[in-house]
Amino acid sequence: MSIAAIEEVERKGQLAVDASLLLAQAGSLSKNKALGAIAAALKENEAAILEANALDVAGARSRGVAEAMVERLTLSSKRIDGMCEGLLDVQRLTDPIGVVIGGATRPNGLQITKLRVPLGVIGIIYESRPNVSVDAGALCLKSGNAAILRGGSEAINSNIALVETMRGAIESVGLPRDAVQLIENTDRAAARRLMTLNGFVDCLIPRGGASLIRTVVENATVPVIETGTGNCHVYVDKSADLDKALAISINAKVQRPSVCNSAETLLVHRDIASTFLPEIGAALIGAGVEIRGDEVVCRTIPQAKIAAESDWYEEYNALIIAAKVVDNLNEAVEHITKYGTKHSEAIITEDYRSAQEFTDRIDAAAVYVNASTRFTDGFQFGMGAEIGISNQKLHARGPMGLEELTTYKYVVRGDGQILQ
Amino acid sequence: MSIAAIEEVERKGQLAVDASLLLAQAGSLSKNKALGAIAAALKENEAAILEANALDVAGARSRGVAEAMVERLTLSSKRIDGMCEGLLDVQRLTDPIGVVIGGATRPNGLQITKLRVPLGVIGIIYESRPNVSVDAGALCLKSGNAAILRGGSEAINSNIALVETMRGAIESVGLPRDAVQLIENTDRAAARRLMTLNGFVDCLIPRGGASLIRTVVENATVPVIETGTGNCHVYVDKSADLDKALAISINAKVQRPSVCNSAETLLVHRDIASTFLPEIGAALIGAGVEIRGDEVVCRTIPQAKIAAESDWYEEYNALIIAAKVVDNLNEAVEHITKYGTKHSEAIITEDYRSAQEFTDRIDAAAVYVNASTRFTDGFQFGMGAEIGISNQKLHARGPMGLEELTTYKYVVRGDGQILQ
Repeated sequence: MSIAAIEEVERKGQLAVDASLLLAQAGSLSKNKALGAIAAALKENEAAILEANALDVAGARSRGVAEAMVERLTLSSKRIDGMCEGLLDVQRLTDPIGVVIGGATRPNGLQITKLRVPLGVIGIIYESRPNVSVDAGALCLKSGNAAILRGGSEAINSNIALVETMRGAIESVGLPRDAVQLIENTDRAAARRLMTLNGFVDCLIPRGGASLIRTVVENATVPVIETGTGNCHVYVDKSADLDKALAISINAKVQRPSVCNSAETLLVHRDIASTFLPEIGAALIGAGVEIRGDEVVCRTIPQAKIAAESDWYEEYNALIIAAKVVDNLNEAVEHITKYGTKHSEAIITEDYRSAQEFTDRIDAAAVYVNASTRFTDGFQFGMGAEIGISNQKLHARGPMGLEELTTYKYVVRGDGQILQ
Repeated sequence: MSIAAIEEVERKGQLAVDASLLLAQAGSLSKNKALGAIAAALKENEAAILEANALDVAGARSRGVAEAMVERLTLSSKRIDGMCEGLLDVQRLTDPIGVVIGGATRPNGLQITKLRVPLGVIGIIYESRPNVSVDAGALCLKSGNAAILRGGSEAINSNIALVETMRGAIESVGLPRDAVQLIENTDRAAARRLMTLNGFVDCLIPRGGASLIRTVVENATVPVIETGTGNCHVYVDKSADLDKALAISINAKVQRPSVCNSAETLLVHRDIASTFLPEIGAALIGAGVEIRGDEVVCRTIPQAKIAAESDWYEEYNALIIAAKVVDNLNEAVEHITKYGTKHSEAIITEDYRSAQEFTDRIDAAAVYVNASTRFTDGFQFGMGAEIGISNQKLHARGPMGLEELTTYKYVVRGDGQILQ
């Protein structure tokens, strides 16, 4: 079983490398044609895809999988339409490949051109959402990369149906079908082998919960882009416009609590605590949010529970928020520096110097003044799509669009130069 | 021993994070002042540094260390002058921090600014050259990063003397002395702990031989930039100007055979083999180079030995070259794709289409037309300095200067925006 898994990954790794060499030479026209063909083929094969998905859903139900996960797993005609729209969105994006991003003519006459090229082979390890197969496959394809997909076992039938459809469509326009491949063996050994496929996988992106990401970071020897965990804060400064503070705090916590850019902790300046806390407390509780506060918060909001030290570290991904009163902006910055995950942090302030100090000092992918942390997203940032949000500093930080799936090479043209 | 090593690394990791927060706020003026102060202090402490170095050299000699390594380990007044010049060169480079590299005002009025910030904490693991402590420390400092240095045990006394001098100088201008730290425990456990110091080390750069780099890639859980191995090729096309081909082939192999951008394999188009091979054979042999060739090469150059399959993979780093006759450009590209390490590859040609096809199809950090592979270097590329040459595609590719030691953050200014 485990030998078969390893063999499959190694074989597909080589096929991916071969496909990536052809894909790197493919122009935008043919890549866009492939994206259109995939969209058409998904609709054509819809019945078969939904049938395969029904098997997965039935299997998940019979194993007593949580309803929220079954919901993420379930496809419908409407969801396939959504995938197709996504494909056409990616089709419309500017191709990042071949763009000249630097260069110079050196004193010795060497002409250096630095230009964007695909990474090569991108591995994606993800959980139960079958739409990731299509979204990630499309972004890799458009950026000229071969994709090796490794989805969760509970979605295996759906993923096989989706990926086979994609491969057929890609081949139909003359590009290599191995541009997108699925690891079909759901054995853990397959994922482990993918994490160590150095020389074949240029970049591995885990998409999913904290434990998946930890497993990849700890076991991979190929380069990884860590995505995920967001312990995001909203700091309400003493100079804040309290209407904005209220709207932003509620939005950052409540609009979609399960995602990484939602707020987990509210920090409130002491000078406005007695005015703002009752207001935000009522609003949060009205929205069904559990508040875990420090002593001042608990005194002001009777429904709040006392927070433990561990609460400041927590990424709840749920309708729970930690809340703390701070003496000043410095204490807010120090709290965020200590407990934050460098994802998305917001200050609500009308004071110029507070805004400047916060944006200067906070080390995070996105630092907001008077806006919700929920905007950290490829679509909102104008990238058109995203393959994930990087939570590391190397290569890409924050939302990753097509450009973040590229590297560069230097082409150096000379007329006989040698190094003296 | 091993517990002390781990404790030292963890303690210095925290100190580095603390220093990095201050350093990220430091302006160019104070960083440049620190670089100048380091240069002055190195000259002032020269006697003590040379004394510490003499201990290391004596120790290495008494352990029978190879003379080439003793040579790399040995400092002199002239070499310290070289370090000081390097510091002043870095001082003159443009500070990459704070540069705005993108941004937009979004339809909802959010003003997004993407700006360069330091990576944070950079770990450098290297071998016996003590000058790396100063070079790497200076580049990290200028780019606003705290550095944790882990040099080879044989240079420990030199490194302690150099780093303590740097730390004092940094502190003397009001920057945190922990901006540069040395792991003084030479136990292997210390290096291993540094490789897994997630949350403290933002980027780890190994500098040294293949086995050091492999150990880091295999054991690190923090993000790594793989440097190093270059199995570089020179392909002499049938249309080549043979004078250029001769000069470039000799330069790429002989000028400094121990470095990663020197050539290891010569590929020659069949149509010119009978003309070019005797010429290049005589020149290489005259320069003391051993030739390991395929059958045609061995028939044409009597001194050549027959190459084994393993020779095509070899990075000799020595006066040895593999040589092969190919039928056409396609065979050259396929050979390089199969055996190369994506470092630096050159074609010698006067044919436009050959030049275009080679630069399009070869996947390497630097692809040359009619120039020596030896130019893959931060100084030659106009970066002013380099911390190493990346051999991976993630984050940085090819020579890494100051910009490659940075990441970015998005500062997003709003006036109350919430996500709908």
